[in-house]
Amino acid sequence: MNTIGTSLRLTLFGSSHGHGIGCVLDGVPSGLEVSREDLQREVDRRRPAISIGTPRREEDSVEVLAGIVDDITTGAPIVLFIANRDTDSSKYELFRAIPRPGHADLTARAKYGDAVDLRGGGQFSGRMTAPIVAAGAVAKTILEAIGVRVAAYTQRLGRIVDNEERNFKDIRMAVWENPVRSADAALALDMVNEIMEAKEEGDSVGGVIRCLAVDLPLGVGEPFFDTLEGELAKMLFAIPGVKGVEFGSGFRGAGMRGSENNDQFIIEAGEVRTITNHAGGILGGISNGMPVDIRVAFKPTASISREQKSVDLERMEDTTLKIEGRHDPCIVPRAVAVVEAATAIVLADMCLRGDFIAREYR
Amino acid sequence: MNTIGTSLRLTLFGSSHGHGIGCVLDGVPSGLEVSREDLQREVDRRRPAISIGTPRREEDSVEVLAGIVDDITTGAPIVLFIANRDTDSSKYELFRAIPRPGHADLTARAKYGDAVDLRGGGQFSGRMTAPIVAAGAVAKTILEAIGVRVAAYTQRLGRIVDNEERNFKDIRMAVWENPVRSADAALALDMVNEIMEAKEEGDSVGGVIRCLAVDLPLGVGEPFFDTLEGELAKMLFAIPGVKGVEFGSGFRGAGMRGSENNDQFIIEAGEVRTITNHAGGILGGISNGMPVDIRVAFKPTASISREQKSVDLERMEDTTLKIEGRHDPCIVPRAVAVVEAATAIVLADMCLRGDFIAREYR
Amino acid sequence: MNTIGTSLRLTLFGSSHGHGIGCVLDGVPSGLEVSREDLQREVDRRRPAISIGTPRREEDSVEVLAGIVDDITTGAPIVLFIANRDTDSSKYELFRAIPRPGHADLTARAKYGDAVDLRGGGQFSGRMTAPIVAAGAVAKTILEAIGVRVAAYTQRLGRIVDNEERNFKDIRMAVWENPVRSADAALALDMVNEIMEAKEEGDSVGGVIRCLAVDLPLGVGEPFFDTLEGELAKMLFAIPGVKGVEFGSGFRGAGMRGSENNDQFIIEAGEVRTITNHAGGILGGISNGMPVDIRVAFKPTASISREQKSVDLERMEDTTLKIEGRHDPCIVPRAVAVVEAATAIVLADMCLRGDFIAREYR
Amino acid sequence: MNTIGTSLRLTLFGSSHGHGIGCVLDGVPSGLEVSREDLQREVDRRRPAISIGTPRREEDSVEVLAGIVDDITTGAPIVLFIANRDTDSSKYELFRAIPRPGHADLTARAKYGDAVDLRGGGQFSGRMTAPIVAAGAVAKTILEAIGVRVAAYTQRLGRIVDNEERNFKDIRMAVWENPVRSADAALALDMVNEIMEAKEEGDSVGGVIRCLAVDLPLGVGEPFFDTLEGELAKMLFAIPGVKGVEFGSGFRGAGMRGSENNDQFIIEAGEVRTITNHAGGILGGISNGMPVDIRVAFKPTASISREQKSVDLERMEDTTLKIEGRHDPCIVPRAVAVVEAATAIVLADMCLRGDFIAREYR
Repeated sequence: MNTIGTSLRLTLFGSSHGHGIGCVLDGVPSGLEVSREDLQREVDRRRPAISIGTPRREEDSVEVLAGIVDDITTGAPIVLFIANRDTDSSKYELFRAIPRPGHADLTARAKYGDAVDLRGGGQFSGRMTAPIVAAGAVAKTILEAIGVRVAAYTQRLGRIVDNEERNFKDIRMAVWENPVRSADAALALDMVNEIMEAKEEGDSVGGVIRCLAVDLPLGVGEPFFDTLEGELAKMLFAIPGVKGVEFGSGFRGAGMRGSENNDQFIIEAGEVRTITNHAGGILGGISNGMPVDIRVAFKPTASISREQKSVDLERMEDTTLKIEGRHDPCIVPRAVAVVEAATAIVLADMCLRGDFIAREYR
Repeated sequence: MNTIGTSLRLTLFGSSHGHGIGCVLDGVPSGLEVSREDLQREVDRRRPAISIGTPRREEDSVEVLAGIVDDITTGAPIVLFIANRDTDSSKYELFRAIPRPGHADLTARAKYGDAVDLRGGGQFSGRMTAPIVAAGAVAKTILEAIGVRVAAYTQRLGRIVDNEERNFKDIRMAVWENPVRSADAALALDMVNEIMEAKEEGDSVGGVIRCLAVDLPLGVGEPFFDTLEGELAKMLFAIPGVKGVEFGSGFRGAGMRGSENNDQFIIEAGEVRTITNHAGGILGGISNGMPVDIRVAFKPTASISREQKSVDLERMEDTTLKIEGRHDPCIVPRAVAVVEAATAIVLADMCLRGDFIAREYR
Repeated sequence: MNTIGTSLRLTLFGSSHGHGIGCVLDGVPSGLEVSREDLQREVDRRRPAISIGTPRREEDSVEVLAGIVDDITTGAPIVLFIANRDTDSSKYELFRAIPRPGHADLTARAKYGDAVDLRGGGQFSGRMTAPIVAAGAVAKTILEAIGVRVAAYTQRLGRIVDNEERNFKDIRMAVWENPVRSADAALALDMVNEIMEAKEEGDSVGGVIRCLAVDLPLGVGEPFFDTLEGELAKMLFAIPGVKGVEFGSGFRGAGMRGSENNDQFIIEAGEVRTITNHAGGILGGISNGMPVDIRVAFKPTASISREQKSVDLERMEDTTLKIEGRHDPCIVPRAVAVVEAATAIVLADMCLRGDFIAREYR
Repeated sequence: MNTIGTSLRLTLFGSSHGHGIGCVLDGVPSGLEVSREDLQREVDRRRPAISIGTPRREEDSVEVLAGIVDDITTGAPIVLFIANRDTDSSKYELFRAIPRPGHADLTARAKYGDAVDLRGGGQFSGRMTAPIVAAGAVAKTILEAIGVRVAAYTQRLGRIVDNEERNFKDIRMAVWENPVRSADAALALDMVNEIMEAKEEGDSVGGVIRCLAVDLPLGVGEPFFDTLEGELAKMLFAIPGVKGVEFGSGFRGAGMRGSENNDQFIIEAGEVRTITNHAGGILGGISNGMPVDIRVAFKPTASISREQKSVDLERMEDTTLKIEGRHDPCIVPRAVAVVEAATAIVLADMCLRGDFIAREYR
């Protein structure tokens, strides 16, 4: 089912080479100011940078089909639609018989049968994340009203790793100044080189995106089963290419001692804070008032132009495959906007749930 | 909401020091053979080993309150109950005012108010995982009918890391032969030492559990939003102490090239297989027929006997805290049964969904 | 799935002749005062009156297994359990082969297969409504906090029809003073006679229960699909024996002119009211501030002692059946407490949803 | 939330005078043949008859935005869209301050605040049922595959009541031959007159629609809480104007004796049947193989041209209101297609659930 969320519910639809892609976002409070331009601005942040991305040139122009009148939400479901224009499906028929390694061709056909729409990756395409980004713009408006802000950046790209602890403000300033969404201008150059090198070799690279959400109130989440980690992870794993999610010290924390990993409490400016933030802002599945700190691992793009081994499903025999087409050698920079949006949607959903609202107003 | 699952639905209830803990498991097909002894055997696998675990001695005797008659499931919801016996709540009142670092004391009170039951960790206690293990035994019976098997082991414990690629059969044989649930007898000794050392120092250690599910049919999962990764991750992050989940090459894959990380296809014994399994058995959110390969990061136990900084919430001032009580210096070995059960519940749920069943019988 | 509700979620379990019956009620706010005696009092209201009901004598003693500590809700799921004691399953094995007319024997077996627990009606028994009544007591406590009150009475019993418009207060006073839950003492006598007459003839009678909910705030419900009518109807149709639900003028309104059926607005004591209440307090699926007015049709009890035609499912041939056992010649009086509870649970659920709470506090 | 369904999930969006109205239908199996023409044909059946309906002339042209490629379902969510063309919103601003009796103006504003879109009834408009009818066309295709057929007709229109027991085939043949969707040509004339008379008097009439579903397999539904009655009722009560739903003998059965209302079993052509069908095809919430027999009560159209009492919400004082605009004096004939579609969607949803499919293939 292409729906996620409890009080804010996102339904995704469309396919890469069909009429278009879009989403329904239900549960948005009425009376919020959201213009088409706000949505377009966010969606544009997901577009590929000229030099390093796919040559597919989608305008990705967002239409509002319902739920917003005169830039004000009405309380009815918001429907966003992005028409597909620059599609070329000629190359995809082959992959029905000879699945591409690392892609969903094989599993899609197993799941949906021969009628599955595999053109351009169909409903498995990274393109499906554009409506998520548009919906994220609405979610950010909801979060703004309670002061929550979200920002993500490329923390790792191939072999280039950003080991600095980063300040939320610095991230927000730096990240849209360079094409790889790095929080550091110098590292950005290295990352661009990493991508160009892979591209020249007909190869691709992956990376890690870190996302911070600050000023989330204490008390968001549950111990079972709608933990803040679990709700975020479920959403993030739906982003094509994601293979790992961790919070705070995550896998690194697994090697620590308790005395080292525990975040000790102090009073700071009249509020309870922790000295460190190894918990990534979450204790017992519930936000503790510290920044929510998420790391998301992306595998390298599956589409590479090198020859690979595959199988002919009709003849059930081994064969080889060389993928042509227009692909990103690295989707990580474009996915930064997606991770931000996905995080914002989940947090907004959790902040619209009845028990949270009741508590906030108590 | 303490419920998870779509076609197989688990509702967890109870608290560490209340009358007991338990669960409702709804959606179990009628006519399956499940004895109380089957459930008890699984729950016993979660009990602490004599030397390395908590001195709390719970019998954890499983009662079947509904849904099974004469060892056969009736199709009605199965209700499992484990009475609490060895409880000593005297030490917990303090933590209401002075929250323990790394614990949910602070967030629980923010979420549920002063009426929250914090005795023994209340509904945040690791003890809540016992009914999950019992429910997992039922889920395994469901999976057995379609040939799916699940096994987990301790892959890392503190500084001791098991880097071997492991065979499913070897894991199943080895893991219950040693108290730390290692897949290797020699490593098991190192891991025991790691725990004993931490314990002596009034400290604790974390670790990583790897879980494999084999013979899951091709085609389980969805691209949005109920991906196989996402559904598993949501469940796994509800296990107390989990801070990271990855599939296949996961975070390691983020540093690879596409040509290295892509799993190329071959025909093997008449079936489509991949040469490597960096995808962890999942492509596009859907199982590809290879083993589902999950790694789960556990933080070190938050309860340590060393003095830690905390705050007095009544006076809103800094203070220190020394936790006494009966705690595990490492929960990882006990969590192996929990990770297995949680994985089995999710996979059984996904294999009971209508679209999967329709396809299997087509 | 044996679960209903969005923000207040009820899961029902057990069977008529198993260990017991019970429920999990999740989403109850913490800090509410609910004693075991409060629950017991409501459940006792569902017990059969000495003269007119089944001779089965269940104590129906409610146990609180979780979620309430020292008569205060903790915010964790509340688990209520009622052990079965006075069970005699000897008579039920027959109905597996020869289904009772009007009962679920045939459909239960089709649905759950041969392993279905049909003893005493299994999970289809009217007995399953006892935990609903207990959960309703908690729901009423939630509703009290916002001033909503619910009361039901027997409006029709067999041929005896109560055509009076009734005042909420009068209903509350009268209804527990007579064994048939009539709002009028004189009619009550007629209704008792109606039951006794049917009983003597080895027959049974049905009836109609009317339920009013007053002081529900304006604005509860939605146009699609969680209408106030739809949410209530879904719950009410789960009560065994219910075959019709209508609101306000209902089926009668279908024969009216618009000019007659429309409820015209007036200002009364500074509030918007309607002169009539043909809408039953609901416009566009949303409460309009007038009393919610529900009518629920119950078929006559299916168990009658007269000989009836049935079929032998093993031999697939016609046969006859004479049901012995302890049955109510009319369940309507006992169902009054159930309709009240079911209504209270739905209204409490809808008043705990985020959008409603946000609006109330705006 | 504007979503309904478990395995087949319908999300409704749009508003009467916005860009358009539409829906997402998720869970449709891949490989079904569904042409745009099939959808259009069903939607056309909902259009008003020339003489007796609203003068609003909507083409209601259905666009398929996603989920169907070359007239074959792909397994992805199906998105249907109907652009609004003939809109005239000038008359609606008034109703924000002076709510129309019988309409949702008051409750819509209470629920969604001042930003609510009330033009043409907004998301409360009967026009929202057009996408339900389109989705129903897809649902009927799903049902056809297992042999289930659905047909509805106008059983009552104002004072004209059709008391004949009707045969499924006769209904299907007759109902689209006359503008009021009667199963009888002579009654149809009376019904037309009933509407014309009301229209001339500036008034409106309601009615009752009966819907039959035949050849539904034994075993669809559950005892708690997803009863076949409850699932159908929840959907049907979302159709604007519906105030009552009953199954089989319904409210009439409440006055019967058990010996009269019980449907006795016989073997007929090797199958278990009941002699009568007072249960409306449902026992214990589960289909028994007999026709599902539903009656749905519609109130008279709220929009009448007579002067009515209302209130001025700004000044909080009594006033009067005379509604002008283009309205149906009776929506019942148009709602026949809607009731059929709504019933088909629910039945298809229930037939796609895992437990049903597993049983069918056992």
